[in-house]
Order: sequence, then C-alpha cells, then structure tokens
Amino acid sequence: MVNVNGNYLKLRGSYLFSEIGKRVREYSAANPDKKVIRLGIGDVTRPLVPAVIDALHAAVDEMGAEETFRGYAPDLGYEFLRDTISRCDYKAKGCPIEPDEIFVSDGAKSDSGNIQEIFGVNNRIAVCDPVYPVYVDTNVMAGRTGVFDEAKGLWSNVVYMPCTAENGFAPELPKETPELIYLCFPNNPTGAAITKDKLQEWVDYANKVGAVIIYDAAYEAYITESNVPHSIYECEGARECAIELHSFSKNAGFTGLRLGYTVIPKDLKREGVMLHSLWARRHGTKYNGAPYIVQRAGEAVYSELGQAQVREQVAYYMRNASYILDGLKSAGFTVSGGVNAPYIWMKTPDGLSSWEFFDHLLSAANVVGTPGVGFGPSGEGYFRLTAFGRFEDTVEAVERIKKL
Amino acid sequence: MVNVNGNYLKLRGSYLFSEIGKRVREYSAANPDKKVIRLGIGDVTRPLVPAVIDALHAAVDEMGAEETFRGYAPDLGYEFLRDTISRCDYKAKGCPIEPDEIFVSDGAKSDSGNIQEIFGVNNRIAVCDPVYPVYVDTNVMAGRTGVFDEAKGLWSNVVYMPCTAENGFAPELPKETPELIYLCFPNNPTGAAITKDKLQEWVDYANKVGAVIIYDAAYEAYITESNVPHSIYECEGARECAIELHSFSKNAGFTGLRLGYTVIPKDLKREGVMLHSLWARRHGTKYNGAPYIVQRAGEAVYSELGQAQVREQVAYYMRNASYILDGLKSAGFTVSGGVNAPYIWMKTPDGLSSWEFFDHLLSAANVVGTPGVGFGPSGEGYFRLTAFGRFEDTVEAVERIKKL
Repeated sequence: MVNVNGNYLKLRGSYLFSEIGKRVREYSAANPDKKVIRLGIGDVTRPLVPAVIDALHAAVDEMGAEETFRGYAPDLGYEFLRDTISRCDYKAKGCPIEPDEIFVSDGAKSDSGNIQEIFGVNNRIAVCDPVYPVYVDTNVMAGRTGVFDEAKGLWSNVVYMPCTAENGFAPELPKETPELIYLCFPNNPTGAAITKDKLQEWVDYANKVGAVIIYDAAYEAYITESNVPHSIYECEGARECAIELHSFSKNAGFTGLRLGYTVIPKDLKREGVMLHSLWARRHGTKYNGAPYIVQRAGEAVYSELGQAQVREQVAYYMRNASYILDGLKSAGFTVSGGVNAPYIWMKTPDGLSSWEFFDHLLSAANVVGTPGVGFGPSGEGYFRLTAFGRFEDTVEAVERIKKL
Repeated sequence: MVNVNGNYLKLRGSYLFSEIGKRVREYSAANPDKKVIRLGIGDVTRPLVPAVIDALHAAVDEMGAEETFRGYAPDLGYEFLRDTISRCDYKAKGCPIEPDEIFVSDGAKSDSGNIQEIFGVNNRIAVCDPVYPVYVDTNVMAGRTGVFDEAKGLWSNVVYMPCTAENGFAPELPKETPELIYLCFPNNPTGAAITKDKLQEWVDYANKVGAVIIYDAAYEAYITESNVPHSIYECEGARECAIELHSFSKNAGFTGLRLGYTVIPKDLKREGVMLHSLWARRHGTKYNGAPYIVQRAGEAVYSELGQAQVREQVAYYMRNASYILDGLKSAGFTVSGGVNAPYIWMKTPDGLSSWEFFDHLLSAANVVGTPGVGFGPSGEGYFRLTAFGRFEDTVEAVERIKKL
C-alpha cells in the first residue's frame, strides 16, 4: 500500500500568499463595492517594457517558421542568454562568473525551492527570521527539519537568525553551526540591505565552517547605495562557498513570464564533488529549459534600450517605496526598508498582531499587505508593504492608512 | 560540513539524451562535411501552427499594456485553460475530470520527475523495461531505489516489467507488489499501445493492491486504433488509483514552448490523504505557474482552427512513421510501433549491441537514433527511431539505412 510523503503533512496550513489570496477573495466577494488596493504579494503591476515585447514578438515569429523553429532548449539555457548574463551581471562588475556556471530556469522561486535537493537530508539549514517561506517549507518537505513548535512558531533542527529592530534587521553569525545558510539581500520581507563588508564576514564564516550560502539576489536591481553589493561574488572567496539565485521578476517585471537563473561556480565543491555537476544533473533530468521566446525576452532586458526601460520601471516602483516610507513616517509609524528594496517593513500600531492588523487594514482601509508573522515569529507585530502597486493606488493606500 | 545528496552519486553517467548529444557533436565536429539526420531525441521539427502563433502574439500584446498585463498566474493554472482541458480532453470523451483536478505545468518531463516527491521514500516503484529514463533517475535521486547492478543493468528495490518481443512489448502484472506503477502508453520508447481492456486490468490490479498508477499519456494524439484508450480515466475505477500526465510537446510541437498538465482526481487518497492536496501544496510552494502567454497558446490548440492545424501536424509525423516502418520492414528489418505512436522500435541487425549500432549508424549512414539499451536492459539489441524529423530527411534516412 502506498504511503505519502509524511513531511508534507508537517507543513503549516497553506502557503502564506495562498492564505492572503483567500482572505482577500472572501472579503471582496462579501464587499463587491469596495476598491481593494493590493500591496501584499510581491507581484508587479507595470506592463513588460517595449524592448521585451519586441523581442517576444520576434521570437514568436521565429517559432512559426520552419527554418527558425526551436525545439528543446539546451539543458543549461541558450548560450546567447548565458553569455549576456555572464558579461553584464558579472564580468562588468568584476565578478569572474563564466557562462557555463549559469543555469537558466523558470524563476527564482523554483530554483530556491529545488536547490536543497542536491544536498543530503541531514544538513541543517540556517535562515533569517523573518524569512521568505519557500526556503523553510521546501526543506520541511524534504525532511531536513524536525517538528513545528506551535508555541514558539519555530521548527526544530533549524537554526534561526532573528532580524529585529534591535540588530537593525541584520542577522548575526549563528551560534550553532549550520551547513546550509539562506541569505536574501536586499531582503524580502524586511527590505534591509547588507554592506559588502558585512557580506564578506558571512563568506569568511562559511568558508571557515564548510557551510554553503544560498544567496538570493532577486532584488539587487533596487540597490541605490554604493556600499551594498549586487552579487555575493563581489566578496573574496565566494566562489568556494556560495550559490546565487537571480530573478527577472522584479527588475524586469517577468512575474507572469517566468525566468531566472542560478549560479554555481565550478570551484564550489563538497566531499570532493562539484555542486555544479549535481545541479546540472538535476536540470538535465527534471527540467526541460525555459521557453526560447522567454529566453530571448530575457536577453532583451540587457540591450541598451532594454536597460533604459527597465531602469525606468525600477525607478517607478522606488518612487512608490519613498512615498510609502515618507508618508508612514510622517504619520508617526515606525518603518524601515524601502531604500535598497521595494519592500517597506512597518511596525503594527497599538500592539496589534500581524494578522489582526491585516484584517483591520483590509476591512477599514481596503488595503492588502502581508502579515510579518507569516515570515516567522520575529515578524510578529510587523507588516510588509510592497512598492509594486500603481503609483496612484500607492498614494491612495498611504492616505487611507494615515486616516486609520 | 555540508554533505551532498549521495543518491545523485549513484546515478549512471549522463542522462541518456545528453550522452547522445555529446557523441553527435563530437562526430559532427570531426566530420563537418557530413549531413547528419537526427531521428534520435524525440524533438519535433515542424514550426508552431498559425493558430498558436496568433494566440502568442495576442497574449504578448496583452503583456505590454497596463490594463491587460498579467503577473503571477494562479497556482494551478489559468481557469480558461483548465476549463478547456476538462471539456475537450476529458468530458468530451466521457471522463468526468473537473477543471480543479487539472494542474497546468511547464511540461510532462518536470511533472514526471517531480510527482514522486509527494510519496514516501519507502514506496517501491515498478517500471517497464525499457523505460523513459526520467521515471527511474528521479526515484534514484530521491533514494527510493537501491544500488545499481552493473552486470544486470538494473537497480535493486525496483520492480522491472520486461517488455520484449515475446510479450509483444506489453508489460505483465508484476509478481512482486509495487506501490507506484509507472505506465506510458502509447509507449516511449517501444511505440507499443495498450488496449482499453488491458489497461482496465492494470486499474483493477492497482485498486486491489492499493498501488498508484502514474500514467504518462504524452503520446495520446498519435493513437489511430479505436480500441486504444486516450486516457486512463476511460477505465472504471481509475479516479481512485491513477494520476495522468499530459504534454503539449508532441501533439502541438511545444517542446520549445513548455506546457503540460497533470490530473489528480480528488477521489485518489492514500492514508486518508488526498494526493491532490499534496500536489497542490507542491505547486504552490515550489512553482510559480506556466507563462500566461504559453497558457494562451495552449488554449489555442483546442480551438477549431487549432485542432485542424495540429491534427495535420500529427498526420505529417505519422506519415514519417509509416514510411520508416514500411521501409525498414521491406528491407528485412524487424520493426514494431509506429501505428499509435511516433516511435519505431527496431531490432539491431547482425546481433549488434544498441550502442554499437548507434555508432555504426552515425558513422556509416550519418543517422542518429536512440540506443534501446539506454532505456533499460530489455532494450539491448534494439534501437528507437522517431517520426519527428522532416519528411525529406526521414525518406533519406530510411534510404541510407537500407543501404547499410
């Protein structure tokens, strides 16, 4: 008789964003006249830029003609895209990442969920608290965690690194030594950034204890300060200890188009095995490549025109971020983030819990945000607002929140 | 110190098609003047049909306008596509599969590799021999198999069901009871089909022993005989024991566009748990949906115009299949398949091994096929040719093989 993967049964309720979606659908169904403004899930709202649209149309035409039709993509992604990424995202910034160290995928969510597969189940993970839920949930599914402590809101056999107002939302080196360290900077959900010096300390630590850092750089396009690194490979020694995840969702609005990439330097070995080979094997066995037309769209992001257009889009969202940050500050709220990231991390007023504030904000202001506690217990009493809305909606949302 | 997933290290060399690609690249590099004809990997060669191209262009335009832009897709896929699939692929054929039992994905390869995740690691799998390598390799990666026996070419703790000339390439019910049964009909690699009566026996067997059938229907569009089922849900009781995988790659040429779907009926439970819920959780946690534009392309396949055009394309490939089948038969080769499937399964001549014949065919006829042994030990002495080439190339390949 078949048994199911019992680790799945340990998971807590629904995936955070599914739960938010459900509550909003229920509220909207009961209140069809209310205009709900969504600053919750990190989904973008601006259309794809013209350079990307043009590249998509051109690639679609290629797929319709016998001479230019493309079937299965190369396992690791098309060379035209991997060459462009290597050149523009790395070599231009002084990071020696080669095209064949880049794996093109359908997005950073898949990669951040799947990457744990190449490691043994006995490795212990370290995560920030609060944290993007995918890192933890996918390790629960794999059996790499213990049981969930309802009272603490924490999994056993996971090293948590609290990010709180006291430490400026910057994790400290863990006291217990983990094997896999998930870091995301600029951070989702807190919007906090890390300086190059601080990140170098993490790289040095990982190399010292033999840990591997899984570095999620999905929000690097939002960095505005010069001492904040765009890639972990700007740090000395990162090629020996770090995997880096990238997304096209936030810098170029590809949330509905699906494209990302993962970098595994060939110098990164454990037990004498190149992690690059393991991930290549996974790609070759369980995946069949991102669509050709989407890879061409990704390439167009790096053209001169594409760069100008996506930078304008990022600036649009960062104007929202400033508006939220300044507006809520002036109204007396305690807020952070929003400078190198499209996320604003606010303290809930009047000692409300995160979900209490969620429900309150939804019903009283018709504004959707993300409850901080959904990202971990240190997020309790906090709330995440995103800068990905339309400017007019963002302005209206801030006005509504001010009036609460 | 990190350790790697040791199960990956048990895997045999490269993934079959990567190895073929490598040998062909090396041959072509050394013999740049030779025109190599590829009837190896099951990749299509016809361009996407006009109805699909039109749908893609229209959807791309939507993504470029603020009012119609789409971000993250719904977890299980867009309703417009799931409704269409439910109606056209199931209800029209008398199978009561609801839209919310359909999970849209980026292709059947991903799904057939990932589906094992929702089951415990102690379940024993049963596979046909020969078999599509992804079923076995992904279970090796998960630790569900034992060790590889080099002499036998088989994994321990796997139930193999030989498909040989003696049993007409139809698996018999296994003597040892497995928990997960992978079946693919019409079959890759042998091209054999299964009758509805025979498939009913499998469904009855699974229900009797509590097994789950993972039914890969990727090639159903090639069925020409009326007693061959297009879906396992045509069988009584399949809703209680079967998961079905579908691809848009072969019926509509989406190998480079990436789209597929998996059906898990809500009646399918084990240990009191709906497998549907587990797969929904996986989709929500590790995946972010197929691109909107690709889901619109998938919908267009079902339009009246789309259906007419993709059927013409399938007919094109089936003309190739007949040509290969008849040509090789008349030349004295022993061949099967090619009637309800785009694959022809040929016995290698002169007692050559599969790889010997591969190398011989590549160097003497410049034709690429797939060594049968790459699919399992019962494939030794066999060779797979695909009907997915251009007609002119297929004719030329057959002529070259005849002259060997």
